[in-house]
Amino acid sequence: MRQSELFTRTRREAPADEVAKNAKLLARAGFIHKEMAGVYSFLPLGLRVLNKLENLIRQEMLGLPAQEVSLPALQPKENWQLTGRWDKMTDLYKLEDQSERELALGPTHEEIVTPLVKNYLSSYQDLPLAIFQFQTKFRMEPRAKSGLLRGREFLMKDLYSFHRDETDLQNFYNQVIGAYQKIFVQLNLSDQTYLTLAGGGTFAEFSHEFQTLTPAGEDTIRICASCHLAVNDEISEKQKNCPNCGNGDLETETAIEAANIFKLGTNFSQPFNLTYRDKKGVNQSVIMGCYGLGVSRLMGILAEVMSDDRGLIWPVAAAPFPLHLLSLGQGDSEAIKAAAKLEQNLCALGHEILWDDRIIAAGEKFADADLIGLPRRAIISDKTLTMGKIELAERRTGEKSFLTETELCASLG
Amino acid sequence: MRQSELFTRTRREAPADEVAKNAKLLARAGFIHKEMAGVYSFLPLGLRVLNKLENLIRQEMLGLPAQEVSLPALQPKENWQLTGRWDKMTDLYKLEDQSERELALGPTHEEIVTPLVKNYLSSYQDLPLAIFQFQTKFRMEPRAKSGLLRGREFLMKDLYSFHRDETDLQNFYNQVIGAYQKIFVQLNLSDQTYLTLAGGGTFAEFSHEFQTLTPAGEDTIRICASCHLAVNDEISEKQKNCPNCGNGDLETETAIEAANIFKLGTNFSQPFNLTYRDKKGVNQSVIMGCYGLGVSRLMGILAEVMSDDRGLIWPVAAAPFPLHLLSLGQGDSEAIKAAAKLEQNLCALGHEILWDDRIIAAGEKFADADLIGLPRRAIISDKTLTMGKIELAERRTGEKSFLTETELCASLG
Repeated sequence: MRQSELFTRTRREAPADEVAKNAKLLARAGFIHKEMAGVYSFLPLGLRVLNKLENLIRQEMLGLPAQEVSLPALQPKENWQLTGRWDKMTDLYKLEDQSERELALGPTHEEIVTPLVKNYLSSYQDLPLAIFQFQTKFRMEPRAKSGLLRGREFLMKDLYSFHRDETDLQNFYNQVIGAYQKIFVQLNLSDQTYLTLAGGGTFAEFSHEFQTLTPAGEDTIRICASCHLAVNDEISEKQKNCPNCGNGDLETETAIEAANIFKLGTNFSQPFNLTYRDKKGVNQSVIMGCYGLGVSRLMGILAEVMSDDRGLIWPVAAAPFPLHLLSLGQGDSEAIKAAAKLEQNLCALGHEILWDDRIIAAGEKFADADLIGLPRRAIISDKTLTMGKIELAERRTGEKSFLTETELCASLG
Repeated sequence: MRQSELFTRTRREAPADEVAKNAKLLARAGFIHKEMAGVYSFLPLGLRVLNKLENLIRQEMLGLPAQEVSLPALQPKENWQLTGRWDKMTDLYKLEDQSERELALGPTHEEIVTPLVKNYLSSYQDLPLAIFQFQTKFRMEPRAKSGLLRGREFLMKDLYSFHRDETDLQNFYNQVIGAYQKIFVQLNLSDQTYLTLAGGGTFAEFSHEFQTLTPAGEDTIRICASCHLAVNDEISEKQKNCPNCGNGDLETETAIEAANIFKLGTNFSQPFNLTYRDKKGVNQSVIMGCYGLGVSRLMGILAEVMSDDRGLIWPVAAAPFPLHLLSLGQGDSEAIKAAAKLEQNLCALGHEILWDDRIIAAGEKFADADLIGLPRRAIISDKTLTMGKIELAERRTGEKSFLTETELCASLG
């Protein structure tokens, strides 16, 4: 894509009402636009990041295996009354139909997926079963000042699993932990992301979270450096030591929850009477688990954690484009012709690149490229043309090399 | 994908509360599940159809060119008051924040996209500009008994364009007509879909719609058979004849609006003071257009128009899978082994297939395949194995042929 055709522009200053680093950087770089507190538009570059994250997560979910669906945001009050959450959940958006029938605007989908599955599930042979979706969720956040880290409207991957018994749930639970770990590895987030033991709610003693260390986080966790595991401070009474090695000398850190893994047991299957016939023909309650991962929040986490004073630094797996091509030169210079040819050749090979084809000062291009933060930058100038090479720079390390076009293609993989 | 792993099942009977043919068929075939009137979940097969439609439409939008964004559902009341639609639009869902601030749940996005663009647009050189999205929309429909044809929550592609003057708007307007025509051609819908002159609202005399003939439609149009054009009955006072050839002998038909194309002029740029500096440095109001296409409605239209008494008949471009593989045989029969091998070979070549690997009666498989309605069906049985061939049948015509695996691969393109 040619940068001159992008309708967004970078800004020197962040919007005055943004306090969170992720929102400031993403707004300045033209990835997002704030509509009101906790509600953002995703602009072309930002939407590309969401799509990259979605596809990365989707592959891991399909591999579990789980089946993808799309459940609605508008949800009947009756379902929420059945589980007792209509009154209990204080951040639930409620609205009225023309006939004054009350509806919920879904912050989560247990109240929809459980009765849905009831239509298709009868025997033990139908289990296990796992269903996921990418869905816009709504939560009436009292404070929404953390940019994409805490939205009133946000994109989430939610996964629900259905099992015959707790052993089967535990197996699947462990599989999801593995899938999440793979996702964080691909995003270069695994070093600062900790599998964290947390409170389990009404059914189970514990749940698990993936917590990413950042001063912007709202959670306090205590980490075991040797096991790369953590305990959420909320259960410090119950669990004082590392759950793996028993180490009692845990370090306190600030972190944000990137994903969670929860045993629901029969909390939802009972109110909706979701049962299966076991091998003996006896009806049993289905055992459930749920597994959330905030996609737009993950974009915010990446902006918080992978950035410097010059701007964003995307990992390849989440970058809107893996390569930023900068042509330095005026009007119809050789550098621009060579860049146009390179863009064409790379696109023909299936590579996605952002070409800054604007006729502006080199310094401005470099500053914009730093702010936008694509992982690699290729520069074509009169100087590189004389050398017969392309200058390649890594955004993260600043490392430079000079490559031929063939070498550049090979390096893009 | 193996059909035995799909959590949905076909049903002989449609849910008792469905009256629309599209909803009955799609629910019976396991594509959708009704949560309440006008609100549906999209199940794995249904979501695949939506994705196919989205990708098809996306390619045409990107080609205009237009840039993809994602705008929020939660919208500030102030924006809707500015355009006067907070009170005027009777089907607008309204809700309240924790601080009792009122919000709209977006049925359309002019109130968001216009002020958004204001942040990035200053000069005539920034125009024209076109922005589109795929978004879940909400509309408080008083009657929602038409399945996917009229939803309270529905998926829509909306496109907004911004221009210096009306000539430029008209050029783009014609381009979108062309893009929409290509979409209907690819869906095999162009024969029964008419470019229809309709009322233009407050700014323009006319707008255009794409109306697809179906008894399930809510609109009455008058068609000119020779020009393949139509006039919406709502403007029969103003426009009595075919707008192209002047033919006054138009045939009255029932149809459903699949897409619309609207000149907004300065209706939205004025309240939001969206202007650009022209070549002389004078501020001018931006001229706008908007272009809607209902994605979930299109799925409903396909189900209404392309189906018979046995079930759905998807066009290749919208089918959840282009090929349905049926293996006939018991347990570990040769047919099942051959089907497993064929599935593997086809997947390795990048073909997506649904393999009915269930051990059930052949008649049940045929009935399910008819209901699900994939465009082509490949049958492997002891009979076809003896012949060394695969039986291929077209869902629409019933036409049969016997092919070798190499021939089958070649026919899949």
